[in-house]
Amino acid sequence: GAAPAIVQAQANIRWRLASSFPKALDTIYGAAETFSKKVSEMSGGKFTISVHAGGELMPAFGVVDGIQNGTVEMAHTAPYYFFGKDETFALACAIPFGLNSRQMTAWMYEGNGLKLMREFYAQYNIISFPMGNTGAQMGGWFRKEIKTVADYKGLKFRVGGFAGKVIERLGGVPQNIPGGEIYQALEKGTIDAAEWVGPYDDQKLGFNKVAPFYHYPGWWEGGPQLDLYVNTKAYEGLSSEYKAIIEAAAAYAHTDMQAKYDARNPEALKQLVAAGTKVVAFNKAVLDAAFKEAMGLYADLSAKNPNWKKVYSDYANFRRDQNLWFRFTEAQFDRYMQSAKL
Amino acid sequence: GAAPAIVQAQANIRWRLASSFPKALDTIYGAAETFSKKVSEMSGGKFTISVHAGGELMPAFGVVDGIQNGTVEMAHTAPYYFFGKDETFALACAIPFGLNSRQMTAWMYEGNGLKLMREFYAQYNIISFPMGNTGAQMGGWFRKEIKTVADYKGLKFRVGGFAGKVIERLGGVPQNIPGGEIYQALEKGTIDAAEWVGPYDDQKLGFNKVAPFYHYPGWWEGGPQLDLYVNTKAYEGLSSEYKAIIEAAAAYAHTDMQAKYDARNPEALKQLVAAGTKVVAFNKAVLDAAFKEAMGLYADLSAKNPNWKKVYSDYANFRRDQNLWFRFTEAQFDRYMQSAKL
Repeated sequence: GAAPAIVQAQANIRWRLASSFPKALDTIYGAAETFSKKVSEMSGGKFTISVHAGGELMPAFGVVDGIQNGTVEMAHTAPYYFFGKDETFALACAIPFGLNSRQMTAWMYEGNGLKLMREFYAQYNIISFPMGNTGAQMGGWFRKEIKTVADYKGLKFRVGGFAGKVIERLGGVPQNIPGGEIYQALEKGTIDAAEWVGPYDDQKLGFNKVAPFYHYPGWWEGGPQLDLYVNTKAYEGLSSEYKAIIEAAAAYAHTDMQAKYDARNPEALKQLVAAGTKVVAFNKAVLDAAFKEAMGLYADLSAKNPNWKKVYSDYANFRRDQNLWFRFTEAQFDRYMQSAKL
Repeated sequence: GAAPAIVQAQANIRWRLASSFPKALDTIYGAAETFSKKVSEMSGGKFTISVHAGGELMPAFGVVDGIQNGTVEMAHTAPYYFFGKDETFALACAIPFGLNSRQMTAWMYEGNGLKLMREFYAQYNIISFPMGNTGAQMGGWFRKEIKTVADYKGLKFRVGGFAGKVIERLGGVPQNIPGGEIYQALEKGTIDAAEWVGPYDDQKLGFNKVAPFYHYPGWWEGGPQLDLYVNTKAYEGLSSEYKAIIEAAAAYAHTDMQAKYDARNPEALKQLVAAGTKVVAFNKAVLDAAFKEAMGLYADLSAKNPNWKKVYSDYANFRRDQNLWFRFTEAQFDRYMQSAKL
């Protein structure tokens, strides 16, 4: 039963969160809003966090600087955007032929992922919390079908983040174009292909009208994770209650974002197919060539970047064990269900 | 920045949570402890929940009655245990050839799952929160390999919950035996086979020593979810802050439990195989026969149980769409990674 009420002091706090995403991306941007709402509810409205779209407070790709300088207390981003600062950022998000969504969460929560990434992030005054995953993304929209690895030669391919480094090794020309400008570039033929996310997000941008081939899987994004960044000094100034509230609200938003994608992608895929989209698997030879280049890149990075080497060696061991296990009951159950008449 | 501190009254509360599980099952029992710890942290120690193992406050399978009567404020259980009260309980947990772990979470968070189950649970004075998933379970330990569906005839098979109804239709004899007594029954030959969970939990009970064949997939448990039950009246008496804290703490524990299984199963599987366990897939003919009986059972239940019919029709539509979508990029990415030399 309830004992007599006891009062306790919790400060009123107003923080700002800089998202790297536009509001139109309701799935990803929405995760920060879900987080903010939960923090407010749990604190009785005393801890409020205003969420700002990419570009509003600072450039979409300026959020690491913003946190590091203490310009803003919080950010929500895809860490692989920052591989130019250090390739190790990508390991908190997605690397080609990396962990899938569930495996990534397992590495973060119960493996060494969160611990290792927080050690790395300390130099940027960041404390991080996993906050969202899109699941395995699609391989993107192509004006011409990719039939052999030679089709990557000279291919102008809009691709986000770290994956461009493998595309380059395949002879492609990665293009860094904001979401809102992809359609026009693809229509005009300025680029040959573009990847964005998956059916739900892609459909809204209309790519199917200008590029008929929708390849899969997105071998560079098997389970990209989003991170909540908190400025370390701001975080340390919080009460232990508010620290715990941030962690749990991020966990709620983490789970909810994957659920949103899973719930919304099927209907969008059906509509895209009904509108004439050709959904085509990359063949094994193409995947094998990309896999080989990815592993070559990781070996090169391990030789020259000690941060990468430290985190990647743990990541790679975890990935090997996860795939050993998942190939049994998870894969067989899913395979049966996917072929069943439901 | 921080505004001046404002005091607010939040009551000191002590609640009890009745788990259906033994402490030895650290993965599942542990989720309730994780939940309790997070609630305490977020409330500054004012909202404390003592977690009690199955049998301590009430029988393991008495927790629905305990919540309904208000004997206890909270419980953590596998809803399919209660299919004898109404088969609809199983839809919040697992049914043969049902949703996998991620799909189940998507149905709960973003589909109609949580809404429909809460409507159903209202008659038991329960408000529910998803709190944990084991992932796809293994198919269990068999003294003799299952080679055809005829091998199920007369098979005395220890199996938890609702799945027994399909085992019966295959000619098997489901056995309801608590975890701690399975080993002895299997060793003596009182039963022919037993399923428990997966490598991590199964290894601790030593089944591999008395039954060499470890079948997969556990077609009756592709993604069993655990639920947190809260007595409706107790819940309604909470402040909105505490209600939100329960929801987020349950989400944290939900995600963490799946992560624990994913992180711990691989090593246990390797050790079991090293100790001579024969890991064998059920063949397609066996799965097809089980699938047919499961669908027959669901049609029968829809004809006679309106609660089942209402919830299952939504569940089945969601399952169809999920498997349509997952067979593309998720399945292809996973399949490639599982066959790659990592």
